Amino acid sequence: MAFYPPPLENLIELLSRLPGIGQKSAARIALYILKSDRDLPRDLANGLMEVKDRIRFCSVCFNLTEDDPCAICTNENRNNGTICVVEGPGEQLALEESGYFRGRYHVLHGVLSPLDHIGPEDLKISELLSRLEPEAVQEIILATNPTTEGEATASFLRGILSDKGLRITRIALGVPMGGDLKYMDPMTLQYALRSRMKVEA
Amino acid sequence: MAFYPPPLENLIELLSRLPGIGQKSAARIALYILKSDRDLPRDLANGLMEVKDRIRFCSVCFNLTEDDPCAICTNENRNNGTICVVEGPGEQLALEESGYFRGRYHVLHGVLSPLDHIGPEDLKISELLSRLEPEAVQEIILATNPTTEGEATASFLRGILSDKGLRITRIALGVPMGGDLKYMDPMTLQYALRSRMKVEA
Repeated sequence: MAFYPPPLENLIELLSRLPGIGQKSAARIALYILKSDRDLPRDLANGLMEVKDRIRFCSVCFNLTEDDPCAICTNENRNNGTICVVEGPGEQLALEESGYFRGRYHVLHGVLSPLDHIGPEDLKISELLSRLEPEAVQEIILATNPTTEGEATASFLRGILSDKGLRITRIALGVPMGGDLKYMDPMTLQYALRSRMKVEA
Repeated sequence: MAFYPPPLENLIELLSRLPGIGQKSAARIALYILKSDRDLPRDLANGLMEVKDRIRFCSVCFNLTEDDPCAICTNENRNNGTICVVEGPGEQLALEESGYFRGRYHVLHGVLSPLDHIGPEDLKISELLSRLEPEAVQEIILATNPTTEGEATASFLRGILSDKGLRITRIALGVPMGGDLKYMDPMTLQYALRSRMKVEA
């Protein structure tokens, strides 16, 4: 086995720990950085440290923010009695970008996963419960992902929220826009058929 | 459009400049870094700077090295009169890892590409010529990639080396191990047929 010089091997090893980056992509990136001018690695190094230094979690909804509470939690126009519960910041952002929802969010920071020893106490569930009264919440939208763990988490939340006199909803599951029925999994097709809607004449 | 907090957006933008990393992978990596403990971003930041600080090019073969000249160029056992010419450090490493070649390398740092304004003077070609006499070179293996630019570069080198009394060879082109003829391009199949070899009885 031949190796790149140690500092390069070290960078490749570190890069390959990142999600979605294997040995080959890590080597490609490391060689690219070596060839680039000094600005890119310096900016990246600073950017990496800044993210850890400046970003925190909103103490209300647990989304990422620089200011606590976050812009959505301090915006009174968004206080419409509806909280959309999501797994993580990525999901929150995707929903927010879709531009439809005008209420507030709650980020669970994970899903129930017994195999990984992640139980209800590891998620921001008690923090969700403590928001119901002060924010006069009337509807909880369960927007965890339609995966085994996401469904289990939604179902758990439905259970503990059921006696609070709330409207509890779940995002619709079905064939996505642009999807091809040929390549869709059977579960999705079952859902799409079962939840079919009447077409207006 | 909603955005992540600025430091996170900044990191995503920087990451998406790296080769093979799009907006989505960059966001995924940035969120992963945010969730990870402090060690990973700190080590990455250091690793990035170290690569630029500690790695240089060998002044003989122009491969990456911490010490100049590199370990191969200072190893007298590798001074066997054969130089294998490659496009970049990645190609050198792949060949070295394959374990067959026992001579020395020469890294061109690119290929001829008129559209990108890369001419012979942008590659380490004069540096290759100046090695011929002191290292008593007898064979040059042209190991540029079998792409349009790689072939053009090999052909250019063949031209300028032709009057030096050297043996000039080109790596074999053909169907790779594990390859499937069904998915192979016509050029490769043509090469593979044209360069077919007699099978021993």
